[in-house]
Amino acid sequence: MKSTVDCMPCFLRQALEAVRMTTDDPALHEETIRRVLKMTAEMDLNVPPPVMGRRVHQLIRELTETPDPYQKIKRQYNQLALQWFNELQLRVRMADDPFRAAVLLAIAGNIIDFGVDGALCMQKVQDTIDQALDQPLDRSTLERLGQEIHNARSILYLGDNAGEIVFDRLLLELMPLEKVVFVVKGSPIINDATMEDAVQAGLTEIVRVIDNGSNAPGTVLEECSPVFRAAFESADLIIAKGQGNFETLNETAANLFFLFQAKCPVVAGHIGKPVGTFVLRRSDCLERIVKTK
Amino acid sequence: MKSTVDCMPCFLRQALEAVRMTTDDPALHEETIRRVLKMTAEMDLNVPPPVMGRRVHQLIRELTETPDPYQKIKRQYNQLALQWFNELQLRVRMADDPFRAAVLLAIAGNIIDFGVDGALCMQKVQDTIDQALDQPLDRSTLERLGQEIHNARSILYLGDNAGEIVFDRLLLELMPLEKVVFVVKGSPIINDATMEDAVQAGLTEIVRVIDNGSNAPGTVLEECSPVFRAAFESADLIIAKGQGNFETLNETAANLFFLFQAKCPVVAGHIGKPVGTFVLRRSDCLERIVKTK
Repeated sequence: MKSTVDCMPCFLRQALEAVRMTTDDPALHEETIRRVLKMTAEMDLNVPPPVMGRRVHQLIRELTETPDPYQKIKRQYNQLALQWFNELQLRVRMADDPFRAAVLLAIAGNIIDFGVDGALCMQKVQDTIDQALDQPLDRSTLERLGQEIHNARSILYLGDNAGEIVFDRLLLELMPLEKVVFVVKGSPIINDATMEDAVQAGLTEIVRVIDNGSNAPGTVLEECSPVFRAAFESADLIIAKGQGNFETLNETAANLFFLFQAKCPVVAGHIGKPVGTFVLRRSDCLERIVKTK
Repeated sequence: MKSTVDCMPCFLRQALEAVRMTTDDPALHEETIRRVLKMTAEMDLNVPPPVMGRRVHQLIRELTETPDPYQKIKRQYNQLALQWFNELQLRVRMADDPFRAAVLLAIAGNIIDFGVDGALCMQKVQDTIDQALDQPLDRSTLERLGQEIHNARSILYLGDNAGEIVFDRLLLELMPLEKVVFVVKGSPIINDATMEDAVQAGLTEIVRVIDNGSNAPGTVLEECSPVFRAAFESADLIIAKGQGNFETLNETAANLFFLFQAKCPVVAGHIGKPVGTFVLRRSDCLERIVKTK
């Protein structure tokens, strides 16, 4: 998915939120936004938003000399989600359709996204979880996902954010875990989950976890490690969490299922749904699937 | 009032809204935002936001070759406000305190501001008017304004937007009109009122109207005409409508009363009130008043 002119003001908002979270120095706030304004003025709109997002956050890490501005927030949300985990697991087990409930709660966890909302509060997360099981989901896509999970010999699960990956565990537990590889980012970017988060969330105890060797807030294949790319190429099924993965992989020829919340007007407009929609959808590009069937 | 880093993303939003309203050509949308990004990257934060606002809208008028993008909207809101006028006049007359009611409705009219909200809808204007008389106002400032109007030999009333100036008429009618000069902008800028609007709103029939010779969305004194500046210098009392006038004149040594709605977080933060507050306040700089008493 390409970037749009509407992404441009959003990069500035993100940059301001992120640099303010990292330092109280107004001179650094000003330098950051001026640098991001210049970068954005020259940016290539043909690339997906996460490519620029990574450059913005890279700049902030450099200017503020803070390698991981969101470390505390990530830890906090991992712990919070772990506190909720047993109750959420019970909700899945008690549901009429546990698979549907697990998918919805995995999507609910995607609300923990500090790229889209730097002022995200606990209450919003709680409300999203409480309303998760009432959200509509495309039934045929859900059934198809279930079939694909059942039939696949290898499944790649692309995680998104810290905290959210605990919610993913609800869905992972309904999957044949010996066939699954869970993927985190290669190094810190916003509040995206890294290996440290996977350990904190207990994922490494139940499933094989690899990192993708990149710190784009999505999956920019050409920048990922050979190990990850090989896993991506050979997977029968790829489950990709979050807007960033949708933005970067939606035109990729692979058997992809996207699970995310449409959190910005550009993405919501692209899929023709309101902001806030719980999305379960396949890749727009199904060539490879046709080819491999 | 100086600009802040938070004004920077806002200029981009404004630019996008304005250029989209003016043309459907995506190439012009992109050129506009890239140019505004570059301008904003280099902008002087020591000047008030309307200085930059004028440059942004100037650029859009030039790129789109449209001298007055908001002409239709201005006419529409003048007509709408005129349709409401008799009923509003009745509300003022029936009020326990007609002066307070007229001030509140003049502030309510300030919602008609396409700089702050390019997607402003009729319903929001209607809701603002309906709730106007329930808004709190600083009683002592209101009384002081009443006294100043009574005592002044010459009053300058700086209008803000088209449509809004019809609401100003409610307050003007309670003033000694022979002492009042009403001021509009020298040429089109956003939906700010010009002489054409003053004629449409019927203001020229009841009060002397001059233009300030400038098209900043506020009052940048050094750029105004000699005639306006002389009127500004000699006025005993200046009533200034709208955020733009507050932003540009709040540090000016003059007997100024500002009437506006705090419509953006930067201005709201500056005065320590929530966004949406109806504001009646004197200039922060009262040197000249002390000097002339």
